[in-house]
Amino acid sequence: MNSKATVIKNVNILTMNQNKDIIENGMLIYKDDKIIYVGCEKEFDEDVNLIDGEDAILMPGMINCHTHASMIPFRSLADDYKDRLKRYLFPLEQKLVDKELTYIGAKYAISEMLLGGVTTFCDMYYFEDEVAKAAKELNMRGIVCETVVDFKAPDSEKPYGGIDYAKDFIKKWKDDDLITPGVAPHAIYTNSDESLKLAYNLSKEYNIPFTMHVAEMDYEVSMYKEKYNLTPIGYLDKLGILDHNFISAHTILVNDEDINILKEKKVKVSHNISANSKGAKGVCPILKMKENNIDIGLGTDGPMSSNTLDIISQMSQVGKIHKLFNNDRTLLPSDEIVEMATMGGARVLGLEKKVGSIEVGKKADLVLIETKSVNMQPIYDYYATIVYSSNPSNVHTVIVDGKIVVRNKELVSGDFSKIRKDLLGLKDKINEVAKNL
Amino acid sequence: MNSKATVIKNVNILTMNQNKDIIENGMLIYKDDKIIYVGCEKEFDEDVNLIDGEDAILMPGMINCHTHASMIPFRSLADDYKDRLKRYLFPLEQKLVDKELTYIGAKYAISEMLLGGVTTFCDMYYFEDEVAKAAKELNMRGIVCETVVDFKAPDSEKPYGGIDYAKDFIKKWKDDDLITPGVAPHAIYTNSDESLKLAYNLSKEYNIPFTMHVAEMDYEVSMYKEKYNLTPIGYLDKLGILDHNFISAHTILVNDEDINILKEKKVKVSHNISANSKGAKGVCPILKMKENNIDIGLGTDGPMSSNTLDIISQMSQVGKIHKLFNNDRTLLPSDEIVEMATMGGARVLGLEKKVGSIEVGKKADLVLIETKSVNMQPIYDYYATIVYSSNPSNVHTVIVDGKIVVRNKELVSGDFSKIRKDLLGLKDKINEVAKNL
Ligand SMILES: [Zn+2]
Ligand SMILES: [Zn+2]
Repeated sequence: MNSKATVIKNVNILTMNQNKDIIENGMLIYKDDKIIYVGCEKEFDEDVNLIDGEDAILMPGMINCHTHASMIPFRSLADDYKDRLKRYLFPLEQKLVDKELTYIGAKYAISEMLLGGVTTFCDMYYFEDEVAKAAKELNMRGIVCETVVDFKAPDSEKPYGGIDYAKDFIKKWKDDDLITPGVAPHAIYTNSDESLKLAYNLSKEYNIPFTMHVAEMDYEVSMYKEKYNLTPIGYLDKLGILDHNFISAHTILVNDEDINILKEKKVKVSHNISANSKGAKGVCPILKMKENNIDIGLGTDGPMSSNTLDIISQMSQVGKIHKLFNNDRTLLPSDEIVEMATMGGARVLGLEKKVGSIEVGKKADLVLIETKSVNMQPIYDYYATIVYSSNPSNVHTVIVDGKIVVRNKELVSGDFSKIRKDLLGLKDKINEVAKNL
Repeated sequence: MNSKATVIKNVNILTMNQNKDIIENGMLIYKDDKIIYVGCEKEFDEDVNLIDGEDAILMPGMINCHTHASMIPFRSLADDYKDRLKRYLFPLEQKLVDKELTYIGAKYAISEMLLGGVTTFCDMYYFEDEVAKAAKELNMRGIVCETVVDFKAPDSEKPYGGIDYAKDFIKKWKDDDLITPGVAPHAIYTNSDESLKLAYNLSKEYNIPFTMHVAEMDYEVSMYKEKYNLTPIGYLDKLGILDHNFISAHTILVNDEDINILKEKKVKVSHNISANSKGAKGVCPILKMKENNIDIGLGTDGPMSSNTLDIISQMSQVGKIHKLFNNDRTLLPSDEIVEMATMGGARVLGLEKKVGSIEVGKKADLVLIETKSVNMQPIYDYYATIVYSSNPSNVHTVIVDGKIVVRNKELVSGDFSKIRKDLLGLKDKINEVAKNL
């Protein structure tokens, strides 16, 4: 590792620590992968790497708590289709998703996340070994979860194949510093009790994340109501698989009792507003969940669902839609939204000791948002500026685990022109399959 | 005027004409202020200005149907306040808005709009002569409407002062090619019948736009229900001031009868989703309005309400919120949203013969959206890419009235560093006043 420290000066720091301290004209110093100083500008050793923030906002790297990165080759296909998941997406994946597409897609999607200031993502897909490899190559932090379904999957001829895949995959990555392996049954409408329990056992055995789509679909709710007179959350609870490792994606169609269960079992929630609104699914009741101290982070879902992978553009939507739905413009002030995008996400992914805030001893996962672009001024409230005015193009410099991955708005941890060329190379084949669906 | 023609080649053209023709690998030629060729690539004269689009999307300049540009010096102040308009905004304006602030704000806001691909805006504020001057200097097309209120206003000691101001202002600008003057009573809750009628008479006399906030506030509806047993639209209809020149901003709290009136009277609607959601006001029923062939364009409202001024970021919100509210992901396909942002807006502002689509004979108001950035690929559907993936930073080149105003993402029709400096120069004074409100 580089033994010189790095000094970042001339920045306004949103620490996102317990007090949400803001340090104007601040300075941060990190060495190797760790933050060693956060405070006012001070004298520093000459023999350092120096980054002049030029009055940028320095914030913790953002965290995308739910995505399917490798779906990016399909972005903008069939956006306004009815029941797109079963009628379009699953068939498309069965025909097209292989190791190569997963890897190429992951490289591109991870580039997009890094360029947009996301330093940690939680992924759910097939061939997750490829995703982990891509993340590692680009130096991104990832919770990388292998999908389990009860039918033939792109990476497995037999049902539950994901379980076997996950076993090897977990062993391979479990001691990695950047990658945390996990397991991801798709949903209760694609997985039997048996496969859910097998996945849960794996998660418990290794104390690793378990993530799943929960209470997202109307038919999911009515199916379990009819069959068992239970809500999806009630059903999962009865199965005994809810615990602190459970990252519940979406979690829209829940009642007060469900929220109580989530709280009791310390389940975490990924709130994916963009996908949930574009897909007309509904709105996760995060205000009630917050009252119950349930940990909430933000996610994009796959790029076929929300069409972008950065967290910056999620934030304004979170604010606007919850204010609108609750008929109250004072709800969810901007600092709480930035918190969900950073520290909240870290808690959801079980990484709160490592990342999510700017504090001495934590990993140097950092984002500089420039304030020179026309949309970024004037600033009376840093949080409001981030939430309601900024866009991913304002991300100037990104550091993950003490390494610069984006500098001057360009990817430096990978060769983006090659990554782009590889992605576009998949287009003809995809077009061919898509037009026959 | 420059007598050389300009050829734009290597672009994918969203014409937004009647058939919504898309021309891939297309070419556009304009001369002076007019488009003279739209079609496939062809041989062209050597003695032209040549723009290589490098596979960009070429679309009509976007139209912002409702804003208060000069409020930009206040952006990010007091975002989550209750009843912000009366408790915060009006007092702030009374204390701070003068000719200079209006001009400086307009210059900055117009720069932001141009950089975001907006080529025409409809403004409502005080000192509109300053706004017109700023627009003219930066070569932006504007419908520039002087505010009328019944109380002392920043640009008038006496009530209705806006009427006198507007009279001179209209005479000064009515024959300008870029600027169309108009008149803008704030709302029924700030204007008496008398001032509304005076404003209407001005609009009728000169056949110029009349714009107003309509059916936006809960208290507006209950007040007129109680006093007259009428809806805001019903009241305006009874006053006899609804006609084809009427641009109705917001128009959220309307019933079927109201929609019928809007249709009969050929009233136009500016749909301002971002401001309406952030302010928890409600959702304008544009689907019903569309069924009734009411012309609908998109607007941002002032930058204290929605915090951005570009139309690109409005589009995805329009799609998502209407899908969500109507529980149907198939509603409002992307092409219809891009139409509202372009041709719809042109109809709303009465400029449909001049701008809003890319057709021979129309004004060269054009936007090139680059497709190199990470968020812009892959493209299977140009409309979906614009609506759900792009952001204002993808705007590469902007042409208004045949003149290049933004080139390579930089403002060329004005000195942005000076414009920015002037804006930031207002900050201390604003901070001083704001902290005592
Ligand atoms: Zn998902
Ligand atoms: Zn307004």
